[in-house]
Amino acid sequence: MYTETGSQWNVAELEGAAHRHLISPAEELAKLGTSGGRPLFTSADGIHVRDSHGRTLIDGPGGMWCTQVGYGSKPIADAIAAQALRICYNSPWYSISGPAAELARRISSFAPGDLNHVFFTTGGSSAVDSALRFVQFYNNVLGRPTKKKIICRIDGYHGSSHLTAACSGRAGNRPNFDLELDTVSFISAPNIYRHPQGKSEAAFLEFLVAEFEERIAALKPENVGAFLAEPILASGGVIIPPKGYHRRILETCRKHDILYISDEVVTGFGRCGHWFASEEVFDIVPDIITFAKGVTSGYVPLGGFVLSESVLAKISGENAKGSFYTNGYTYSGHPVSCAAALANIGVIEDQDLLAHVREITPYFQEQLAKLRELPLVGDVRGVGLLGCVECATDPTSEAATDFDRQVALRIDRQCYENGLVVRPIGSMCVLSPALIITRPQIDEMVSILRESIVRVQAEIRAEGKF
Amino acid sequence: MYTETGSQWNVAELEGAAHRHLISPAEELAKLGTSGGRPLFTSADGIHVRDSHGRTLIDGPGGMWCTQVGYGSKPIADAIAAQALRICYNSPWYSISGPAAELARRISSFAPGDLNHVFFTTGGSSAVDSALRFVQFYNNVLGRPTKKKIICRIDGYHGSSHLTAACSGRAGNRPNFDLELDTVSFISAPNIYRHPQGKSEAAFLEFLVAEFEERIAALKPENVGAFLAEPILASGGVIIPPKGYHRRILETCRKHDILYISDEVVTGFGRCGHWFASEEVFDIVPDIITFAKGVTSGYVPLGGFVLSESVLAKISGENAKGSFYTNGYTYSGHPVSCAAALANIGVIEDQDLLAHVREITPYFQEQLAKLRELPLVGDVRGVGLLGCVECATDPTSEAATDFDRQVALRIDRQCYENGLVVRPIGSMCVLSPALIITRPQIDEMVSILRESIVRVQAEIRAEGKF
Repeated sequence: MYTETGSQWNVAELEGAAHRHLISPAEELAKLGTSGGRPLFTSADGIHVRDSHGRTLIDGPGGMWCTQVGYGSKPIADAIAAQALRICYNSPWYSISGPAAELARRISSFAPGDLNHVFFTTGGSSAVDSALRFVQFYNNVLGRPTKKKIICRIDGYHGSSHLTAACSGRAGNRPNFDLELDTVSFISAPNIYRHPQGKSEAAFLEFLVAEFEERIAALKPENVGAFLAEPILASGGVIIPPKGYHRRILETCRKHDILYISDEVVTGFGRCGHWFASEEVFDIVPDIITFAKGVTSGYVPLGGFVLSESVLAKISGENAKGSFYTNGYTYSGHPVSCAAALANIGVIEDQDLLAHVREITPYFQEQLAKLRELPLVGDVRGVGLLGCVECATDPTSEAATDFDRQVALRIDRQCYENGLVVRPIGSMCVLSPALIITRPQIDEMVSILRESIVRVQAEIRAEGKF
Repeated sequence: MYTETGSQWNVAELEGAAHRHLISPAEELAKLGTSGGRPLFTSADGIHVRDSHGRTLIDGPGGMWCTQVGYGSKPIADAIAAQALRICYNSPWYSISGPAAELARRISSFAPGDLNHVFFTTGGSSAVDSALRFVQFYNNVLGRPTKKKIICRIDGYHGSSHLTAACSGRAGNRPNFDLELDTVSFISAPNIYRHPQGKSEAAFLEFLVAEFEERIAALKPENVGAFLAEPILASGGVIIPPKGYHRRILETCRKHDILYISDEVVTGFGRCGHWFASEEVFDIVPDIITFAKGVTSGYVPLGGFVLSESVLAKISGENAKGSFYTNGYTYSGHPVSCAAALANIGVIEDQDLLAHVREITPYFQEQLAKLRELPLVGDVRGVGLLGCVECATDPTSEAATDFDRQVALRIDRQCYENGLVVRPIGSMCVLSPALIITRPQIDEMVSILRESIVRVQAEIRAEGKF
């Protein structure tokens, strides 16, 4: 029986407490406390987690695209404890902490172009929320009060605050919330796999760019403040846009003085083999980059955005009407969070993990791609250590079916039985393991996924459903 | 020269980095990098912080109303490090951590009435944002799509996300943001000190209740979803409502099936001598309580809300249309944050800090109240270990003047010189020290504040301005 060090807790008590008192994200409230619930994870090490039944599993999604250096990092735990003892908190509204200052400097040095100013928040949602509040602030200070609309994409995900949820086009996150905002306008997801049949990638790109330009024209450029996009749509289904997409969209933004916000909450801090993916992988220098997750490898909450010097210059100095960006959180630039991030960056550097990711990525993607030969698999795609296997029981369908989603859930459960956590997103099995993963571990992970797909494939065939 | 352990940092480098790369909350962006900036706090212990010039100061505001057990708590640092090594992260979207389950149980046991279900976020803003998103969800599930308006108070503060900022009536936080939402409606602050001259407290209470009822009638009850209020308006100026206010407002809410959200981000976790102040101090059992800050004594980011069983029951079980509360954060129920909170609760219990606060509160408030004899002081007020000295150069004025605000800022600077951090909010000097503060430390704190006020008073008299 699992017992927490120094406490009386045991599994039954903890599971009972969760059952009776905890509301988890995406909880089905109508059934709260009546279902079996989610597994209790009790310890973790490297790329593995252990559950309350003593089962050790490879953590396929890497927490939630965030455990870059893996579980159990002593340098990070030590840095957190040392900072908590040195000075655990300072109010960023009237003081500065060393770790926040140093981390702002490091992140500025990683960010492309003239993105040199960092604003810290508590995670990805607050990072994007704050960046969007900056767009309001910026255009109000510039005397352009109408230039506020945000163009986002269907299947995009940008957070769970009211505003960032309204900018998230994933259908699954919208029911029963009031997310229809005047200021938000959605364009197509750049989804090559599910894009209208018969179009080449090049033709699809032209369609996407034209759609963006037409949308700006329809809204009028003087009303459009920002374009908000993940380089790869992550929880929307690891959607990788056609080559050249981001550059073409950025050029259109520049033409109309629209801020380009690159939401790198998932792609940042090594996931694609670089500190940030915007420039190195997608060939753009946006105006703002948002980050979270990998910045601390998930050890403590932290997020933020990096802002371009030239954008800031427009509301600074002599021309400025001068005003206070009165946005901010109690925990902005939290010293313990920033100390964790600095230690995390130290581990990534000491272990040369960015080079490791670049080196191992082709192997990871190739092994994953081999699953395409399975009849149940409609598509396999990925960038860096981020990959997705999409189930398609009917490959001619233009969208995933309910049955596809049930199949993905069954594969997920089978993987869990076989020792692998897989995060099912709709009809997709998504993998974004810790960056420290080795070739043998990739083999093991993909092999469990393959066996599980084969097993579910056989089952649904036997059921006459495939 | 201050040097961070195990690093090359020194003060000049850190201050330079902050200057060039850090955007702090409420930063005057037009002057970014050109002003002297905020003090760099380098270490802290108990109720004291130390700045980069080696100056040791009493931390009057307790960080930002949050450092309950004080700086340098080894039990909390140890718990954080142990949890970071055991399992530093788990995705709350598909798993549960022991600390989150146990903390949900503890918080449920502290919360009044049937408030037994806890949803975790990353801080106060996300706590309130999520509670307000629950109001949307709740009324949509119940088939009442119009019942969504939120009634808030002028001078209230509820956070810095787009939605929570829109619900915050503090004038200073609103310029250059687009915060006029259809769904938000403001009523008066229950400010006895600045309330219209000539009214008794009882008459003022009747005015406030009538205003609330009239507002509901004007909006129509079927359109009003929630009332959102801090028990004491904290950063709006330590505004303490007339006796009976919360109970009367709650009764009105019940009459119209309006959810009462008590925002205890500041008042929770011991600030008023109890885990929560709603019932014990203000005699109400609200439907939702939001918390943050004191829950971890600020050691790591954490927030959340506690929800009433009976409210939840209305959208559960047989009657429910059944739906998923697809709100949540990567860091919801973060194991390290929750472990810090459990250790923090342990320290509060081991040191019997709630009893200490109740015992020392009269002394703290009496010492502070003596400052009322100074001509510059217009009002002194407080609850628990939360107090405020309001400067009023013209006591007949119905609102604080610009000069009052300048005076408060001068007092703040003088206090800093004399060894006390004071957070100036408008014309007010606000104190909310760590709960471990002793009588001699209260004496020292109030004495520095007195000397500083006396000095500034003399200065502005000499300048012919008072």
